[in-house]
Amino acid sequence: MPHINLNNDLPGIRGAMAFRPETAAPLSELAEILLRDDEGLSRLDRELIGTYVSYLNDCFYCHHSHGEIACIYSGGDRELINQVRNDYNSANISSKLKSLLAIAEKVQQGGKAVTPTDIENAKKAGASDRDIHDTVLIAAAFCMFNRYVDGLATLTPTDMSSYPLRAKQIAEKGYGSHVYTSKQPVAEEKI
Amino acid sequence: MPHINLNNDLPGIRGAMAFRPETAAPLSELAEILLRDDEGLSRLDRELIGTYVSYLNDCFYCHHSHGEIACIYSGGDRELINQVRNDYNSANISSKLKSLLAIAEKVQQGGKAVTPTDIENAKKAGASDRDIHDTVLIAAAFCMFNRYVDGLATLTPTDMSSYPLRAKQIAEKGYGSHVYTSKQPVAEEKI
Repeated sequence: MPHINLNNDLPGIRGAMAFRPETAAPLSELAEILLRDDEGLSRLDRELIGTYVSYLNDCFYCHHSHGEIACIYSGGDRELINQVRNDYNSANISSKLKSLLAIAEKVQQGGKAVTPTDIENAKKAGASDRDIHDTVLIAAAFCMFNRYVDGLATLTPTDMSSYPLRAKQIAEKGYGSHVYTSKQPVAEEKI
Repeated sequence: MPHINLNNDLPGIRGAMAFRPETAAPLSELAEILLRDDEGLSRLDRELIGTYVSYLNDCFYCHHSHGEIACIYSGGDRELINQVRNDYNSANISSKLKSLLAIAEKVQQGGKAVTPTDIENAKKAGASDRDIHDTVLIAAAFCMFNRYVDGLATLTPTDMSSYPLRAKQIAEKGYGSHVYTSKQPVAEEKI
């Protein structure tokens, strides 16, 4: 049960966002820009970074939600998602993405944990300044999203079939940054 | 020196935001709504929560920037800001704000650290569901802002006189959510 009365039974961050649409608007816009930008990092790269940070923060809802979106972008390669989560260094991903996941891991611990060596490794592996910027901000943003979701004890679906369904909606339509533009969110599919 | 070339010499989060105005837009809008809403928590309450979380995250730039804004809202009561940072339980603030700072402290550790007892204490002290929501999201947002600032090693002014000057601008004009609406930020005062 959520810590406060959210006046809805939507799961995870969606319940918190529907409670306060004023803050939901910039939050969904941030997710839309950071996770669905096609320049530099791919959408799969971006979702893998978010999934990994959510896993490190032990946020069940975000970890599984974004893991499923990443799974769709990977063409259904669930093993890849599991590998990145459990030991990204042995996963079948580029050395560039490995070096960026190392930076994300440091950001999850705290901003000051990122060292010049971490940055140098990423640059050597081909990461641009923009890739590094986006990695730091994606990791930082998930440190917010995860705390928002768990700090309010939002509802976590235990029926695991709901995650792929919602992931499909997001992969197709995005993070709904168009939904929260007024005091009241527009009705959306209830998955 | 910042970890990446930000193409500007603006301090702290402003340097990172000018580098990537697309993400700066929702970030500044989030700050504007969360920190300058006058319903429920006061602007001073909101800035004190942000200052305290930034202090816990050891983010020098955010901690001093928001401490100075809080100082302005308090009518120049610097001792109050220091008390909240060092031992909020002995500070001259309401028991409601103390209970919300206790929640913010837990959110800084991780969302799951917030307990039903923390929430119950806040409700007993007069906090509404909206106050608790905003506290959790302010604390979570600063866990993002702090990591963004330090994860990129943005410039930290050592001239402490710059912080009150910039704080005055923000207290008067807000977080500039109007500034970042396109690919290029509008020129702003360079403090």
